[in-house]
Amino acid sequence: MKHTEIQTRDVFYVSDGTAITCETLGHVVLGQFSFVPNEKTFPFVESEDKVADLVKQIQQSHDKHGVKPLVFFSMVVPAMRDQLLQAPAFFYDVLESIVQRVAEDTQIEPKPKLQRSRSVSKDSDTYFDRISAIEYTLAHDDGISLKDLDKADIILLGVSRSGKTPTSLYMAMQFGLRVVNYPFIAEDMKMLRLLPEFEFQRHKLFGLTIEPERLTQIRQNRLSGSEYASSEQCEQEIATIESLFRREAIPYINTTSLSVEEISTRVLEKTGLKRRLF
Amino acid sequence: MKHTEIQTRDVFYVSDGTAITCETLGHVVLGQFSFVPNEKTFPFVESEDKVADLVKQIQQSHDKHGVKPLVFFSMVVPAMRDQLLQAPAFFYDVLESIVQRVAEDTQIEPKPKLQRSRSVSKDSDTYFDRISAIEYTLAHDDGISLKDLDKADIILLGVSRSGKTPTSLYMAMQFGLRVVNYPFIAEDMKMLRLLPEFEFQRHKLFGLTIEPERLTQIRQNRLSGSEYASSEQCEQEIATIESLFRREAIPYINTTSLSVEEISTRVLEKTGLKRRLF
Repeated sequence: MKHTEIQTRDVFYVSDGTAITCETLGHVVLGQFSFVPNEKTFPFVESEDKVADLVKQIQQSHDKHGVKPLVFFSMVVPAMRDQLLQAPAFFYDVLESIVQRVAEDTQIEPKPKLQRSRSVSKDSDTYFDRISAIEYTLAHDDGISLKDLDKADIILLGVSRSGKTPTSLYMAMQFGLRVVNYPFIAEDMKMLRLLPEFEFQRHKLFGLTIEPERLTQIRQNRLSGSEYASSEQCEQEIATIESLFRREAIPYINTTSLSVEEISTRVLEKTGLKRRLF
Repeated sequence: MKHTEIQTRDVFYVSDGTAITCETLGHVVLGQFSFVPNEKTFPFVESEDKVADLVKQIQQSHDKHGVKPLVFFSMVVPAMRDQLLQAPAFFYDVLESIVQRVAEDTQIEPKPKLQRSRSVSKDSDTYFDRISAIEYTLAHDDGISLKDLDKADIILLGVSRSGKTPTSLYMAMQFGLRVVNYPFIAEDMKMLRLLPEFEFQRHKLFGLTIEPERLTQIRQNRLSGSEYASSEQCEQEIATIESLFRREAIPYINTTSLSVEEISTRVLEKTGLKRRLF
Protein backbone atom coordinates (compact mmCIF):
# COMPACT_ATOMS: atom_id res chain seq x y z
CA MET A 1 0.00 0.00 0.00
CA LYS A 2 1.44 3.34 -1.09
CA HIS A 3 0.93 6.50 0.90
CA THR A 4 2.66 8.88 -1.45
CA GLU A 5 -0.42 11.10 -1.47
CA ILE A 6 -0.05 11.82 2.24
CA GLN A 7 1.45 15.20 2.95
CA THR A 8 1.51 15.29 6.75
CA ARG A 9 2.11 12.67 9.41
CA ASP A 10 1.49 12.73 13.12
CA VAL A 11 4.74 12.12 14.98
CA PHE A 12 5.01 11.36 18.71
CA TYR A 13 8.21 11.71 20.74
CA VAL A 14 7.82 9.64 23.90
CA SER A 15 10.19 9.05 26.77
CA ASP A 16 10.40 8.35 30.48
CA GLY A 17 12.94 11.23 30.52
CA THR A 18 12.95 14.62 28.82
CA ALA A 19 12.46 13.08 25.35
CA ILE A 20 15.16 15.44 24.08
CA THR A 21 17.14 12.57 22.54
CA CYS A 22 14.00 11.28 20.80
CA GLU A 23 13.20 14.75 19.50
CA THR A 24 16.74 15.44 18.29
CA LEU A 25 17.10 12.15 16.47
CA GLY A 26 13.53 11.96 15.18
CA HIS A 27 13.67 15.49 13.86
CA VAL A 28 16.86 14.79 11.90
CA VAL A 29 15.46 11.52 10.54
CA LEU A 30 12.29 13.27 9.39
CA GLY A 31 14.39 15.95 7.70
CA GLN A 32 15.19 13.29 5.11
CA PHE A 33 11.54 12.82 4.15
CA SER A 34 9.24 15.01 2.12
CA PHE A 35 6.13 14.76 4.29
CA VAL A 36 5.38 17.44 6.85
CA PRO A 37 5.60 16.06 10.39
CA ASN A 38 3.03 17.18 12.96
CA GLU A 39 5.20 16.67 16.03
CA LYS A 40 4.09 16.23 19.64
CA THR A 41 6.35 15.50 22.58
CA PHE A 42 5.43 13.43 25.64
CA PRO A 43 8.21 13.61 28.24
CA PHE A 44 8.28 11.94 31.66
CA VAL A 45 5.91 9.13 30.74
CA GLU A 46 6.61 7.34 33.98
CA SER A 47 3.31 5.71 34.96
CA GLU A 48 0.92 3.20 33.46
CA ASP A 49 -1.80 5.85 33.50
CA LYS A 50 0.31 8.14 31.37
CA VAL A 51 1.08 5.34 28.92
CA ALA A 52 -2.60 4.44 28.74
CA ASP A 53 -3.51 8.04 27.96
CA LEU A 54 -0.85 8.18 25.27
CA VAL A 55 -2.02 4.92 23.70
CA LYS A 56 -5.46 6.52 23.47
CA GLN A 57 -4.06 9.59 21.71
CA ILE A 58 -2.14 7.43 19.25
CA GLN A 59 -5.31 5.46 18.57
CA GLN A 60 -7.19 8.70 17.92
CA SER A 61 -4.51 9.90 15.50
CA HIS A 62 -4.68 6.59 13.68
CA ASP A 63 -8.48 6.65 13.47
CA LYS A 64 -8.56 10.25 12.32
CA HIS A 65 -5.99 9.98 9.54
CA GLY A 66 -6.38 6.34 8.57
CA VAL A 67 -2.62 5.77 8.79
CA LYS A 68 -0.33 4.84 11.63
CA PRO A 69 1.52 7.75 13.21
CA LEU A 70 5.28 7.52 13.82
CA VAL A 71 6.48 7.10 17.41
CA PHE A 72 10.11 7.75 18.31
CA PHE A 73 10.51 6.53 21.86
CA SER A 74 12.71 5.44 24.71
CA MET A 75 11.24 3.55 27.64
CA VAL A 76 13.32 1.69 30.19
CA VAL A 77 10.63 -0.21 32.12
CA PRO A 78 9.71 -3.29 30.05
CA ALA A 79 6.07 -3.47 31.17
CA MET A 80 5.42 0.13 30.16
CA ARG A 81 7.29 -0.35 26.91
CA ASP A 82 5.09 -3.34 26.06
CA GLN A 83 1.99 -1.37 26.97
CA LEU A 84 3.02 1.44 24.59
CA LEU A 85 3.75 -0.99 21.77
CA GLN A 86 0.08 -2.06 21.75
CA ALA A 87 -0.89 1.24 20.09
CA PRO A 88 -1.46 1.34 16.30
CA ALA A 89 1.75 3.10 15.25
CA PHE A 90 5.14 2.61 13.65
CA PHE A 91 7.61 2.49 16.53
CA TYR A 92 11.28 3.49 16.55
CA ASP A 93 13.24 2.81 19.70
CA VAL A 94 15.96 5.42 19.47
CA LEU A 95 18.41 3.66 21.78
CA GLU A 96 17.73 -0.04 21.96
CA SER A 97 19.28 -1.33 18.77
CA ILE A 98 22.47 0.69 19.25
CA VAL A 99 22.74 -0.29 22.93
CA GLN A 100 22.42 -3.95 21.96
CA ARG A 101 25.08 -3.65 19.28
CA VAL A 102 27.49 -1.86 21.62
CA ALA A 103 26.94 -4.65 24.16
CA GLU A 104 27.67 -7.32 21.57
CA ASP A 105 30.71 -5.52 20.19
CA THR A 106 32.29 -4.69 23.53
CA GLN A 107 31.07 -7.79 25.37
CA ILE A 108 30.00 -5.53 28.20
CA GLU A 109 26.51 -5.76 29.67
CA PRO A 110 24.46 -2.57 29.63
CA LYS A 111 22.76 -1.39 32.79
CA PRO A 112 19.48 0.15 31.64
CA LYS A 113 18.60 3.25 33.57
CA LEU A 114 16.22 6.15 33.28
CA GLN A 115 17.50 8.94 31.11
CA ARG A 116 18.65 11.69 33.39
CA SER A 117 20.35 14.23 31.20
CA ARG A 118 22.90 16.03 33.33
CA SER A 119 21.02 15.09 36.45
CA VAL A 120 21.94 17.32 39.34
CA SER A 121 22.05 14.77 42.11
CA LYS A 122 24.42 12.49 40.23
CA ASP A 123 26.72 15.12 39.00
CA SER A 124 26.83 18.22 41.08
CA ASP A 125 30.13 19.54 39.72
CA THR A 126 28.69 19.53 36.24
CA TYR A 127 25.78 21.60 37.50
CA PHE A 128 28.03 24.22 39.07
CA ASP A 129 30.37 24.29 36.07
CA ARG A 130 27.48 24.90 33.75
CA ILE A 131 25.86 27.57 35.89
CA SER A 132 29.14 29.38 36.35
CA ALA A 133 29.87 29.27 32.61
CA ILE A 134 26.44 30.80 31.94
CA GLU A 135 26.96 33.49 34.57
CA TYR A 136 30.42 34.38 33.34
CA THR A 137 29.17 34.56 29.77
CA LEU A 138 26.16 36.73 30.67
CA ALA A 139 28.42 39.08 32.61
CA HIS A 140 30.73 39.36 29.58
CA ASP A 141 28.09 39.63 26.87
CA ASP A 142 28.34 42.45 24.35
CA GLY A 143 31.33 44.16 25.96
CA ILE A 144 29.51 44.71 29.30
CA SER A 145 32.64 43.79 31.22
CA LEU A 146 36.26 43.20 30.28
CA LYS A 147 37.27 42.07 33.75
CA ASP A 148 38.56 38.59 34.53
CA LEU A 149 39.49 37.92 30.91
CA ASP A 150 42.08 35.46 32.17
CA LYS A 151 39.18 33.18 33.14
CA ALA A 152 37.70 33.20 29.63
CA ASP A 153 37.90 30.13 27.43
CA ILE A 154 37.37 32.19 24.31
CA ILE A 155 36.76 35.80 23.27
CA LEU A 156 34.51 36.37 20.25
CA LEU A 157 34.94 39.57 18.24
CA GLY A 158 32.68 40.93 15.55
CA VAL A 159 30.49 43.79 14.40
CA SER A 160 27.00 44.26 15.82
CA ARG A 161 24.63 41.46 14.69
CA SER A 162 27.22 39.03 13.48
CA GLY A 163 25.97 36.27 15.80
CA LYS A 164 28.14 36.79 18.89
CA THR A 165 25.52 36.72 21.66
CA PRO A 166 23.58 33.59 20.67
CA THR A 167 26.84 31.77 19.92
CA SER A 168 28.28 32.75 23.31
CA LEU A 169 25.19 31.60 25.19
CA TYR A 170 25.01 28.36 23.26
CA MET A 171 28.67 27.58 23.98
CA ALA A 172 28.17 28.33 27.69
CA MET A 173 24.96 26.34 28.01
CA GLN A 174 25.83 23.31 25.90
CA PHE A 175 29.62 23.14 26.10
CA GLY A 176 30.16 24.65 29.57
CA LEU A 177 32.61 27.22 28.20
CA ARG A 178 33.23 30.75 29.50
CA VAL A 179 32.77 33.09 26.59
CA VAL A 180 33.45 36.80 26.29
CA ASN A 181 32.03 38.65 23.34
CA TYR A 182 32.93 42.13 22.28
CA PRO A 183 31.24 44.18 19.58
CA PHE A 184 33.42 46.39 17.40
CA ILE A 185 31.90 49.83 17.32
CA ALA A 186 32.60 52.83 15.17
CA GLU A 187 35.42 54.22 17.33
CA ASP A 188 37.37 50.97 17.38
CA MET A 189 36.82 50.82 13.65
CA LYS A 190 38.23 54.23 12.93
CA MET A 191 41.38 53.46 14.82
CA LEU A 192 41.41 49.86 13.59
CA ARG A 193 42.96 48.67 16.79
CA LEU A 194 42.59 45.98 19.39
CA LEU A 195 41.81 47.07 22.92
CA PRO A 196 44.83 46.85 25.22
CA GLU A 197 42.79 44.48 27.47
CA PHE A 198 43.02 41.89 24.72
CA GLU A 199 46.80 42.01 24.37
CA PHE A 200 47.48 39.31 26.95
CA GLN A 201 44.61 37.18 25.65
CA ARG A 202 45.50 37.11 21.98
CA HIS A 203 45.44 33.32 21.83
CA LYS A 204 41.77 33.41 22.90
CA LEU A 205 40.58 35.85 20.25
CA PHE A 206 38.27 34.55 17.56
CA GLY A 207 36.41 36.57 14.93
CA LEU A 208 32.92 36.24 13.49
CA THR A 209 32.21 37.83 10.16
CA ILE A 210 29.21 37.78 7.85
CA GLU A 211 28.30 38.74 4.27
CA PRO A 212 27.37 42.44 4.11
CA GLU A 213 24.06 41.61 2.36
CA ARG A 214 23.04 39.27 5.14
CA LEU A 215 24.13 41.75 7.81
CA THR A 216 22.03 44.43 6.13
CA GLN A 217 19.03 42.11 6.13
CA ILE A 218 19.46 41.30 9.83
CA ARG A 219 19.92 44.94 10.82
CA GLN A 220 16.97 46.07 8.67
CA ASN A 221 14.90 43.49 10.49
CA ARG A 222 15.87 45.26 13.69
CA LEU A 223 16.10 48.96 12.81
CA SER A 224 14.58 49.38 9.40
CA GLY A 225 15.77 52.42 7.42
CA SER A 226 18.53 53.41 9.84
CA GLU A 227 22.06 54.41 8.92
CA TYR A 228 23.17 51.44 11.08
CA ALA A 229 21.25 49.09 8.78
CA SER A 230 22.31 50.70 5.48
CA SER A 231 24.19 48.51 3.05
CA GLU A 232 27.03 51.09 2.83
CA GLN A 233 27.55 51.00 6.59
CA CYS A 234 27.40 47.21 6.71
CA GLU A 235 29.85 46.84 3.83
CA GLN A 236 32.28 49.27 5.36
CA GLU A 237 32.17 47.67 8.83
CA ILE A 238 32.73 44.19 7.43
CA ALA A 239 35.62 45.30 5.22
CA THR A 240 37.22 47.05 8.18
CA ILE A 241 36.86 44.22 10.67
CA GLU A 242 38.05 41.59 8.22
CA SER A 243 41.17 43.60 7.55
CA LEU A 244 41.70 43.90 11.31
CA PHE A 245 41.33 40.11 11.72
CA ARG A 246 43.86 39.54 8.95
CA ARG A 247 46.35 42.14 10.17
CA GLU A 248 46.23 40.82 13.74
CA ALA A 249 46.21 37.17 12.61
CA ILE A 250 42.94 36.51 14.42
CA PRO A 251 41.25 33.35 13.11
CA TYR A 252 37.67 33.96 11.95
CA ILE A 253 34.72 32.32 10.28
CA ASN A 254 31.89 33.57 8.13
CA THR A 255 28.56 32.95 9.87
CA THR A 256 26.31 33.91 6.96
CA SER A 257 24.60 30.60 6.29
CA LEU A 258 25.29 28.92 9.61
CA SER A 259 23.00 28.14 12.52
CA VAL A 260 24.06 28.89 16.08
CA GLU A 261 24.93 25.20 16.53
CA GLU A 262 27.06 25.24 13.41
CA ILE A 263 28.91 28.41 14.38
CA SER A 264 29.59 27.06 17.89
CA THR A 265 30.80 23.72 16.59
CA ARG A 266 33.04 25.33 13.99
CA VAL A 267 34.58 27.58 16.63
CA LEU A 268 35.48 24.49 18.69
CA GLU A 269 36.87 22.81 15.60
CA LYS A 270 39.00 25.78 14.51
CA THR A 271 40.35 26.59 17.97
CA GLY A 272 40.81 23.06 19.23
CA LEU A 273 38.85 24.04 22.37
CA LYS A 274 37.28 21.07 24.14
CA ARG A 275 33.76 21.19 25.43
CA ARG A 276 33.56 20.84 29.22
CA LEU A 277 30.21 19.12 29.18
CA PHE A 278 28.06 17.00 26.94
CA MET B 1 36.87 -12.44 23.75
CA LYS B 2 35.85 -10.63 26.93
CA HIS B 3 36.94 -7.07 27.59
CA THR B 4 35.41 -6.75 31.04
CA GLU B 5 38.75 -5.59 32.43
CA ILE B 6 38.73 -2.50 30.22
CA GLN B 7 37.77 0.62 32.10
CA THR B 8 37.96 3.27 29.39
CA ARG B 9 37.15 3.29 25.69
CA ASP B 10 37.97 5.78 22.99
CA VAL B 11 34.79 7.07 21.40
CA PHE B 12 34.61 9.10 18.18
CA TYR B 13 31.63 11.20 17.13
CA VAL B 14 31.89 11.83 13.40
CA SER B 15 29.63 13.71 11.03
CA ASP B 16 29.52 15.78 7.87
CA GLY B 17 27.46 18.23 9.95
CA THR B 18 27.81 19.48 13.52
CA ALA B 19 27.88 15.94 14.96
CA ILE B 20 25.47 17.15 17.65
CA THR B 21 23.03 14.33 16.93
CA CYS B 22 25.86 11.77 17.11
CA GLU B 23 27.04 13.25 20.40
CA THR B 24 23.59 13.43 21.95
CA LEU B 25 22.66 9.89 21.04
CA GLY B 26 26.08 8.34 21.65
CA HIS B 27 26.38 10.00 25.03
CA VAL B 28 23.01 8.62 26.16
CA VAL B 29 23.86 5.14 24.83
CA LEU B 30 27.18 5.17 26.68
CA GLY B 31 25.40 6.24 29.86
CA GLN B 32 24.06 2.67 29.98
CA PHE B 33 27.54 1.15 30.15
CA SER B 34 30.01 0.98 33.00
CA PHE B 35 33.18 1.87 31.07
CA VAL B 36 34.44 5.44 31.00
CA PRO B 37 34.24 6.88 27.49
CA ASN B 38 37.08 9.06 26.23
CA GLU B 39 35.04 11.13 23.79
CA LYS B 40 36.27 13.10 20.79
CA THR B 41 34.10 14.92 18.28
CA PHE B 42 34.87 15.39 14.59
CA PRO B 43 32.32 17.69 12.97
CA PHE B 44 32.20 18.83 9.33
CA VAL B 45 34.11 15.85 7.95
CA GLU B 46 33.32 16.89 4.40
CA SER B 47 36.41 15.92 2.39
CA GLU B 48 38.33 12.77 1.64
CA ASP B 49 41.41 14.30 3.26
CA LYS B 50 39.52 14.79 6.50
CA VAL B 51 38.23 11.23 6.40
CA ALA B 52 41.74 9.94 5.71
CA ASP B 53 43.10 11.85 8.69
CA LEU B 54 40.32 10.50 10.90
CA VAL B 55 40.94 6.92 9.75
CA LYS B 56 44.54 7.41 10.81
CA GLN B 57 43.50 8.62 14.28
CA ILE B 58 41.15 5.66 14.69
CA GLN B 59 43.96 3.33 13.66
CA GLN B 60 46.26 4.93 16.25
CA SER B 61 43.65 4.53 18.98
CA HIS B 62 43.24 0.89 18.02
CA ASP B 63 46.98 0.25 18.00
CA LYS B 64 47.51 2.04 21.30
CA HIS B 65 44.77 0.31 23.29
CA GLY B 66 44.59 -3.01 21.48
CA VAL B 67 40.80 -2.74 21.15
CA LYS B 68 38.57 -1.15 18.57
CA PRO B 69 37.25 2.28 19.52
CA LEU B 70 33.55 3.06 19.14
CA VAL B 71 32.49 5.38 16.30
CA PHE B 72 29.05 6.98 16.29
CA PHE B 73 28.65 8.58 12.91
CA SER B 74 26.50 10.05 10.21
CA MET B 75 27.87 10.51 6.68
CA VAL B 76 25.68 11.23 3.69
CA VAL B 77 28.18 10.80 0.83
CA PRO B 78 28.54 7.04 0.17
CA ALA B 79 32.19 7.17 -0.96
CA MET B 80 33.28 8.96 2.19
CA ARG B 81 31.15 6.68 4.32
CA ASP B 82 32.86 3.63 2.79
CA GLN B 83 36.26 5.22 3.29
CA LEU B 84 35.50 5.76 7.00
CA LEU B 85 34.28 2.18 7.45
CA GLN B 86 37.76 0.90 6.52
CA ALA B 87 39.09 1.96 9.91
CA PRO B 88 39.45 -0.62 12.70
CA ALA B 89 36.47 0.37 14.86
CA PHE B 90 32.96 -0.59 15.89
CA PHE B 91 30.66 1.64 13.85
CA TYR B 92 27.18 2.89 14.73
CA ASP B 93 25.33 4.84 12.09
CA VAL B 94 22.99 6.94 14.20
CA LEU B 95 20.46 7.58 11.45
CA GLU B 96 20.61 4.98 8.74
CA SER B 97 18.71 2.08 10.27
CA ILE B 98 15.88 4.32 11.48
CA VAL B 99 15.67 6.17 8.15
CA GLN B 100 15.41 2.84 6.33
CA ARG B 101 12.68 1.61 8.64
CA VAL B 102 10.70 4.84 8.29
CA ALA B 103 10.97 4.50 4.51
CA GLU B 104 9.72 0.92 4.61
CA ASP B 105 6.90 1.71 7.01
CA THR B 106 5.65 4.82 5.25
CA GLN B 107 6.50 3.68 1.72
CA ILE B 108 8.05 7.10 1.15
CA GLU B 109 11.54 7.42 -0.29
CA PRO B 110 14.05 9.39 1.81
CA LYS B 111 16.07 12.16 0.23
CA PRO B 112 19.46 12.03 1.89
CA LYS B 113 20.89 15.44 2.58
CA LEU B 114 23.63 16.94 4.63
CA GLN B 115 22.66 17.63 8.21
CA ARG B 116 22.08 21.33 8.49
CA SER B 117 20.63 21.91 11.91
CA ARG B 118 18.49 25.02 11.71
CA SER B 119 20.42 26.24 8.71
CA VAL B 120 19.95 29.94 8.19
CA SER B 121 19.65 30.03 4.44
CA LYS B 122 16.88 27.46 4.35
CA ASP B 123 14.91 28.79 7.18
CA SER B 124 15.37 32.45 7.82
CA ASP B 125 12.21 32.92 9.88
CA THR B 126 13.43 30.33 12.33
CA TYR B 127 16.67 32.25 12.66
CA PHE B 128 14.92 35.52 13.45
CA ASP B 129 12.43 33.86 15.81
CA ARG B 130 15.24 32.29 17.73
CA ILE B 131 17.34 35.43 17.94
CA SER B 132 14.40 37.52 19.02
CA ALA B 133 13.46 34.97 21.70
CA ILE B 134 17.02 35.12 23.03
CA GLU B 135 17.04 38.91 23.00
CA TYR B 136 13.68 39.21 24.69
CA THR B 137 14.74 36.72 27.35
CA LEU B 138 18.07 38.46 28.00
CA ALA B 139 16.29 41.80 28.33
CA HIS B 140 13.87 40.26 30.86
CA ASP B 141 16.35 38.23 32.88
CA ASP B 142 16.38 38.55 36.64
CA GLY B 143 13.76 41.29 36.79
CA ILE B 144 15.82 43.71 34.65
CA SER B 145 12.72 44.83 32.80
CA LEU B 146 9.00 44.28 33.27
CA LYS B 147 8.03 45.99 30.03
CA ASP B 148 6.31 44.20 27.16
CA LEU B 149 5.08 41.39 29.40
CA ASP B 150 2.24 40.86 26.93
CA LYS B 151 4.85 39.47 24.50
CA ALA B 152 6.11 36.88 26.99
CA ASP B 153 5.32 33.21 26.52
CA ILE B 154 5.97 32.48 30.17
CA ILE B 155 7.04 34.27 33.36
CA LEU B 156 9.16 32.30 35.81
CA LEU B 157 9.10 33.27 39.49
CA GLY B 158 11.37 32.08 42.27
CA VAL B 159 13.88 33.04 44.90
CA SER B 160 17.47 33.83 43.98
CA ARG B 161 19.35 30.70 42.78
CA SER B 162 16.36 28.50 42.15
CA GLY B 163 17.33 27.95 38.49
CA LYS B 164 15.43 30.74 36.72
CA THR B 165 18.18 32.21 34.52
CA PRO B 166 19.59 29.01 32.98
CA THR B 167 16.07 27.67 32.47
CA SER B 168 14.98 30.90 30.76
CA LEU B 169 17.99 30.90 28.42
CA TYR B 170 17.58 27.24 27.60
CA MET B 171 13.89 27.71 26.76
CA ALA B 172 14.71 30.70 24.55
CA MET B 173 17.62 29.01 22.76
CA GLN B 174 16.20 25.53 22.29
CA PHE B 175 12.45 26.09 22.23
CA GLY B 176 12.31 29.63 20.78
CA LEU B 177 10.18 30.89 23.68
CA ARG B 178 10.16 34.39 25.17
CA VAL B 179 10.79 34.01 28.86
CA VAL B 180 10.64 36.57 31.65
CA ASN B 181 12.13 35.68 34.99
CA TYR B 182 11.68 37.57 38.19
CA PRO B 183 13.48 36.95 41.47
CA PHE B 184 11.53 37.37 44.69
CA ILE B 185 13.53 39.54 46.99
CA ALA B 186 13.13 40.34 50.66
CA GLU B 187 10.66 43.19 50.18
CA ASP B 188 8.29 41.18 48.03
CA MET B 189 8.60 38.45 50.60
CA LYS B 190 7.63 40.60 53.53
CA MET B 191 4.53 41.80 51.80
CA LEU B 192 3.93 38.40 50.23
CA ARG B 193 2.40 39.94 47.19
CA LEU B 194 2.52 39.74 43.43
CA LEU B 195 3.64 42.82 41.57
CA PRO B 196 0.76 44.67 39.91
CA GLU B 197 2.57 44.22 36.55
CA PHE B 198 1.82 40.51 36.79
CA GLU B 199 -1.91 40.90 37.37
CA PHE B 200 -2.83 40.82 33.68
CA GLN B 201 -0.38 38.01 33.01
CA ARG B 202 -1.49 35.57 35.69
CA HIS B 203 -1.95 32.75 33.20
CA LYS B 204 1.73 33.02 32.27
CA LEU B 205 3.10 32.79 35.82
CA PHE B 206 5.04 29.70 36.76
CA GLY B 207 7.02 29.08 39.93
CA LEU B 208 10.32 27.35 40.55
CA THR B 209 11.08 26.13 44.02
CA ILE B 210 13.91 24.07 45.52
CA GLU B 211 14.73 22.19 48.72
CA PRO B 212 16.18 24.61 51.30
CA GLU B 213 19.23 22.34 51.83
CA ARG B 214 20.06 22.41 48.13
CA LEU B 215 19.49 26.16 47.96
CA THR B 216 21.85 26.63 50.90
CA GLN B 217 24.50 24.53 49.13
CA ILE B 218 24.15 26.55 45.91
CA ARG B 219 24.28 29.89 47.71
CA GLN B 220 27.22 28.79 49.86
CA ASN B 221 29.01 27.91 46.65
CA ARG B 222 28.48 31.49 45.59
CA LEU B 223 28.74 33.57 48.78
CA SER B 224 30.10 31.33 51.47
CA GLY B 225 29.25 32.32 55.03
CA SER B 226 26.81 35.10 54.11
CA GLU B 227 23.41 35.69 55.66
CA TYR B 228 22.02 35.20 52.15
CA ALA B 229 23.45 31.67 52.09
CA SER B 230 22.45 30.72 55.65
CA SER B 231 20.13 27.77 56.04
CA GLU B 232 17.69 29.87 58.12
CA GLN B 233 17.38 32.45 55.35
CA CYS B 234 16.98 29.80 52.65
CA GLU B 235 14.36 27.90 54.65
CA GLN B 236 12.39 31.04 55.33
CA GLU B 237 12.47 32.24 51.72
CA ILE B 238 11.32 28.89 50.39
CA ALA B 239 8.51 28.59 52.93
CA THR B 240 7.35 32.09 52.05
CA ILE B 241 7.43 31.71 48.29
CA GLU B 242 5.75 28.33 48.34
CA SER B 243 2.92 29.77 50.39
CA LEU B 244 2.66 32.61 47.86
CA PHE B 245 2.50 30.13 44.97
CA ARG B 246 -0.23 28.19 46.76
CA ARG B 247 -2.25 31.22 47.78
CA GLU B 248 -2.12 32.71 44.28
CA ALA B 249 -2.70 29.33 42.61
CA ILE B 250 0.55 29.63 40.63
CA PRO B 251 1.68 26.23 39.34
CA TYR B 252 5.21 25.36 40.40
CA ILE B 253 7.81 22.62 40.34
CA ASN B 254 10.65 21.64 42.58
CA THR B 255 13.96 21.90 40.71
CA THR B 256 16.16 20.27 43.35
CA SER B 257 17.35 17.20 41.48
CA LEU B 258 16.60 18.36 37.94
CA SER B 259 18.93 19.45 35.16
CA VAL B 260 18.18 22.58 33.15
CA GLU B 261 16.81 20.37 30.35
CA GLU B 262 14.54 18.57 32.77
CA ILE B 263 13.22 21.77 34.34
CA SER B 264 12.55 23.29 30.90
CA THR B 265 10.82 20.18 29.63
CA ARG B 266 8.68 19.89 32.76
CA VAL B 267 7.63 23.53 32.46
CA LEU B 268 6.41 22.85 28.91
CA GLU B 269 4.62 19.74 30.08
CA LYS B 270 2.87 21.42 33.02
CA THR B 271 1.86 24.56 31.13
CA GLY B 272 0.98 22.97 27.81
CA LEU B 273 3.23 25.54 26.10
CA LYS B 274 4.46 24.40 22.68
CA ARG B 275 8.03 24.86 21.63
CA ARG B 276 8.40 27.15 18.62
CA LEU B 277 11.47 25.42 17.28
CA PHE B 278 13.15 22.06 17.34
